[in-house]
Amino acid sequence: MGTPVMSTLPPLNPPVRTLLGPGPSDIHPRVLAAMAKPTVGHLDPYFLQLMDNLQGGLRQLFRTENRMTFAVSGTGSAGMETVVNNLIEPGDAMVVCVNGVFGGRMCDVAERAGAKVTKVERPWGEVFTAEEVAAVVAQAKPKVVGIVMAETSTGASQPIQEISKVVHDAGALLAVDTVTALGGMPVEVDAWNIDAIYSGTQKCLSCPPGLAPVSFGPAAMDVILSRKTKVQSWYLDVTMLASYWGSDRVYHHTAPINANYGLYEAVQVILEEGLEACFARHDLNHRALKAGLAAIGIGYAAQEGHQLPMLNAVLVPEGVDEAQVRKDLLTRFGVEIGAGLGAFKGKVWRIGLMGYGARPQNVYLVLSALEQLLAEQGCRFEHGASIAAASEVYRGA
Amino acid sequence: MGTPVMSTLPPLNPPVRTLLGPGPSDIHPRVLAAMAKPTVGHLDPYFLQLMDNLQGGLRQLFRTENRMTFAVSGTGSAGMETVVNNLIEPGDAMVVCVNGVFGGRMCDVAERAGAKVTKVERPWGEVFTAEEVAAVVAQAKPKVVGIVMAETSTGASQPIQEISKVVHDAGALLAVDTVTALGGMPVEVDAWNIDAIYSGTQKCLSCPPGLAPVSFGPAAMDVILSRKTKVQSWYLDVTMLASYWGSDRVYHHTAPINANYGLYEAVQVILEEGLEACFARHDLNHRALKAGLAAIGIGYAAQEGHQLPMLNAVLVPEGVDEAQVRKDLLTRFGVEIGAGLGAFKGKVWRIGLMGYGARPQNVYLVLSALEQLLAEQGCRFEHGASIAAASEVYRGA
Repeated sequence: MGTPVMSTLPPLNPPVRTLLGPGPSDIHPRVLAAMAKPTVGHLDPYFLQLMDNLQGGLRQLFRTENRMTFAVSGTGSAGMETVVNNLIEPGDAMVVCVNGVFGGRMCDVAERAGAKVTKVERPWGEVFTAEEVAAVVAQAKPKVVGIVMAETSTGASQPIQEISKVVHDAGALLAVDTVTALGGMPVEVDAWNIDAIYSGTQKCLSCPPGLAPVSFGPAAMDVILSRKTKVQSWYLDVTMLASYWGSDRVYHHTAPINANYGLYEAVQVILEEGLEACFARHDLNHRALKAGLAAIGIGYAAQEGHQLPMLNAVLVPEGVDEAQVRKDLLTRFGVEIGAGLGAFKGKVWRIGLMGYGARPQNVYLVLSALEQLLAEQGCRFEHGASIAAASEVYRGA
Repeated sequence: MGTPVMSTLPPLNPPVRTLLGPGPSDIHPRVLAAMAKPTVGHLDPYFLQLMDNLQGGLRQLFRTENRMTFAVSGTGSAGMETVVNNLIEPGDAMVVCVNGVFGGRMCDVAERAGAKVTKVERPWGEVFTAEEVAAVVAQAKPKVVGIVMAETSTGASQPIQEISKVVHDAGALLAVDTVTALGGMPVEVDAWNIDAIYSGTQKCLSCPPGLAPVSFGPAAMDVILSRKTKVQSWYLDVTMLASYWGSDRVYHHTAPINANYGLYEAVQVILEEGLEACFARHDLNHRALKAGLAAIGIGYAAQEGHQLPMLNAVLVPEGVDEAQVRKDLLTRFGVEIGAGLGAFKGKVWRIGLMGYGARPQNVYLVLSALEQLLAEQGCRFEHGASIAAASEVYRGA
């Protein structure tokens, strides 16, 4: 029959890690506890009320009054696909800014949706000026311009406000990827006039991966509601999702209840701290890490002045076996950091200080461990130098 | 600025329900505990090993040796979209069997993927014969035939094996929806020659919604790997997912780690019980419920001989305010059952006995509560009749 013999699985006992990579980040214990709360139905009055409250919380995080603000039942990449697939109809022109993996991914998603894609490209780690975007937009006359605010692959932060102006001056819609940015640095959907935005739960929201917060402004909703063709994905069709997340509560798909519990608690943790305090904490720990790394000769991959606080893409010192360091960090210290992707493969480490993970404890841990491992590999620096430098930043704060 | 004033959310305190609707079903306590275990990275050696083991477990549930057996990072509907979008290229012919909501949904998904869809239709609650499917397939010459094995909207069970034969005799591929079936009744991917199959976690697997187990056989993979066009969804592209879930472990998207923990534990719980014992338990509790309902004059909506064990779609007695009964069940007894959808709206209740929920405790609870509420609404029957009838089934087992 070919039917395999039944056999049970090894017990589920995941190791306890300190997650300082590009995400998933360290999960807040309250969020893990929330994930295990009793499941209710997706049309239960309690869950419908929770959806309302969660939408209110997400509006605060995105700083928007957009009614269509909700959590897509998929990871950040599903959020990207939701935004692109709902705004684009076959044959529409789209401009995508590409200076890392996720801009590239957006091109792929847009082409699959039938867009005629024009890329604006920059070397990895650099950022775009409003002028260069304006020049391409003037030529391509796109319906939508897509850009990544915080490139997880390069650690570069892209100023959005000026780009929003040139995009709207040209009559296009602006779609922004804030998978890594949201909750770790200011994201101002209404003030910056962002038409469509998506994020993920597993970065600065300190929540396991699985949901993608999104928000659509009035101009984007006008475009979506006047489409000539159906959205090519049934699962991600905002016109249908609007009936479930909107006041009608019409059944669409069965929402991931417990994942929404986790996101709810994660949003709550941030609202309790306050967004400004949360951004300041990310910035402080980033500066401490940066000072500590500088003291042992490790610099940043992204353009100075545009380095993300929550994702530190740093240059591997010459002669160091970077994969061995990551492996030792994981197996000897339980610390996960990320490898470089694409153009940065083998050259860059990505150290995340995201959400709950952005704490002095973690900065000291990763610096101490890195000092030891780099010393073992023959790097020379004064022992304790990174700790002293980080400490100085904290003392001055 | 329009920025809303920051305000925190009400505490997260979901009520404890007994979930006897069409899903989500009652979650096994071990599964809830698994969801809260420490998150690791999606490329952590532990997680990669867990993926291997989970795939092995899913193969046992699907009774297949298909290498491409894994969990899609979305709910059952995303599983449907994964199967359809990967098999279909624009212009391909597809036949879809429609006798309820989910067959209808499959048509919509297929049309969005560019398929020329031919429907085989049956009134809600009835099932298809191999002959009628053969007749339509002979005319339409489809690339793919899609059918729902267990229609959650009608409680009807569709025999798959004979249909598989006529589909393959005509040279088409067979895609089967087992969102509700898997884990509650025999599903034999290899023995029945099913080419592509999907399920969900929130039915008989007793796991919160959020993932969609899928499996693709060799013929389906040949079709997918020789596509002329890209799969229209990047997120659900099996050619790329194969690199992450396959031996290469190439990063695609960030897998929902904790949801996979939950599914892992859910599969483990089933493997420990044994599939045959699990099916027998579903059948026994279904028969007890059916006998109990019959004793108070409640019959089934689906064709006799084709009634699902895990989803009992039953006819609301005449003169009963069905919405009030459901509301009272929820608020006074903490029991969720489902309303009728579409053609069955207002006429049918859907009582799920799925996975961990398929227990005598729940059968007695829902019968006792229904007796009380129906008596309050003026229905006349001997009090305790349903309990006595159910008990007789259990005693005879």
